[in-house]
Amino acid sequence: MPAHQSGRSVFDLGTYLDAASQAVDRTLDRALPRATRKPATIHKAMRYSLFAGGKRMRPALCLAASEACGGEWAGALASAAAVECIHTYSLIHDDLPAMDNDDFRRGKPTNHKVFGEGVAILAGDALLTIAFEILAETPISKRYPLKTQLTELTQTAGSLQLIAGQVADLEGEGKRLSQTDLRFIHERKTSALLCTSVRLGGMSANCSPTQLESLTTFGYNVGLAFQVIDDILDVTQSTEKLGKTAGKDTAAQKATYPAIVGLEKSRKIAQQLTDKAFSALGAFKGKATALEAIADYLLKRDH
Amino acid sequence: MPAHQSGRSVFDLGTYLDAASQAVDRTLDRALPRATRKPATIHKAMRYSLFAGGKRMRPALCLAASEACGGEWAGALASAAAVECIHTYSLIHDDLPAMDNDDFRRGKPTNHKVFGEGVAILAGDALLTIAFEILAETPISKRYPLKTQLTELTQTAGSLQLIAGQVADLEGEGKRLSQTDLRFIHERKTSALLCTSVRLGGMSANCSPTQLESLTTFGYNVGLAFQVIDDILDVTQSTEKLGKTAGKDTAAQKATYPAIVGLEKSRKIAQQLTDKAFSALGAFKGKATALEAIADYLLKRDH
Repeated sequence: MPAHQSGRSVFDLGTYLDAASQAVDRTLDRALPRATRKPATIHKAMRYSLFAGGKRMRPALCLAASEACGGEWAGALASAAAVECIHTYSLIHDDLPAMDNDDFRRGKPTNHKVFGEGVAILAGDALLTIAFEILAETPISKRYPLKTQLTELTQTAGSLQLIAGQVADLEGEGKRLSQTDLRFIHERKTSALLCTSVRLGGMSANCSPTQLESLTTFGYNVGLAFQVIDDILDVTQSTEKLGKTAGKDTAAQKATYPAIVGLEKSRKIAQQLTDKAFSALGAFKGKATALEAIADYLLKRDH
Repeated sequence: MPAHQSGRSVFDLGTYLDAASQAVDRTLDRALPRATRKPATIHKAMRYSLFAGGKRMRPALCLAASEACGGEWAGALASAAAVECIHTYSLIHDDLPAMDNDDFRRGKPTNHKVFGEGVAILAGDALLTIAFEILAETPISKRYPLKTQLTELTQTAGSLQLIAGQVADLEGEGKRLSQTDLRFIHERKTSALLCTSVRLGGMSANCSPTQLESLTTFGYNVGLAFQVIDDILDVTQSTEKLGKTAGKDTAAQKATYPAIVGLEKSRKIAQQLTDKAFSALGAFKGKATALEAIADYLLKRDH
């Protein structure tokens, strides 16, 4: 058992996130066809975006949620890898010219800039598909059979959540959105998958219904806070620091929290959401050290 | 039990296909969010292509395969609806400007012509996602737990099958392909999903391993024959009759069987594949009437 999991050593988030990334990357690498498998283009394209230096925050939250419920990483790795595939697919498709038209992501050219639009669309499709194949390997229990876990992920990725958020985002461009409209988008584009990441982590540890509810409150509020902070950073930080084009939301006339309620109120909202998230962790009686540290990190980040 | 299922009346394919379509359409209609659910655009776009007059051949094959193994339609409807969602998603994405750039499908404007590229991409994503949600409702057995059925569908839809076929097809445009290259594309673009349609139908009826093998041989060969005939029709039929742009393959410099081996040899290949498919049905001892009739219909169609 790695030192960060023993509970006796001082908790170090950097070490924890590195170990989580490595474990998830090994799972993803094993699950994806080799880059040389025919047709090589699609497997190169899938791997290009999946291993483009993503911070693996959703997988880390998934593993940490499993720990908080008394589980081991091994049991949560399939779920963690599955949510990362969903996240990466959504980024590839969101970046397309027909959507947000982004040329850079994590400081590297976006998938369609490297492989062309056709292959980028198909690479997204393939990552979406393989997410469910990977999830099929998750440990199941009477309380959370595969059907429950599969439906959790399909509903979150589907047209009422993740895709609904992207559609509402697209349709909102250039329009004057209310704070309610913006909340609708954030809940679906960001909060839903973060929430499902921790919920699937809990399920993999056969968590109690009460624990699942606490994880839901935590994930939902961290997700919203994360997105409000993303909006704030887009206004306040440079392109270099973000690793993606800064001021893009303003340029695209996208509604953001700072644009609707101002920068100071946005910061307050982010803080309130974080407070709610942290309160939900009380239920785990000291076993949520990692969850708490990751949430803290997500809210204090400056890029 | 409808007359066509009693086995005592004379089998009428038209009546059978109508009843199958209606049953599958009811399942799809119940599974998809209403067209008015927010954001309405995405649900309208999903329903536009899903209810665009598709012949529901894959679902019909799925139901007929279940019957051949002693099952009832009710048990196979989830699988039948799931494969139709996968099929429709693949058509929406294949028609995109970045792929085959088709303006018409089944005589109607393609999804992106009506809803725009961004929404069309997302409607495809949403149909791909909901396919797995619908599959989660399929009856499971010790022999075919959900994990087995889910993996069957993810592998068929994934980067080594359906998506591999589309990538190879895209990359083959304007190139001189061998008959082997073309077979690679057809196996993946068409045969894989037809094969999985009958296999999932069999699984829903808890078929024996031997029955599953016969269904595999049947589905694989019907799928290949179907695609060879599609190539032949593209050369020999008018746009009006096809309901899609004729001569498109030639115009796009796509490799086809007639272009590589000539029209007569293409017809012979199609016949050989059909013969192989029909032989596989011997194992079902008279219970494969519907499967046989559908295959016969697919090979004698002139549009």
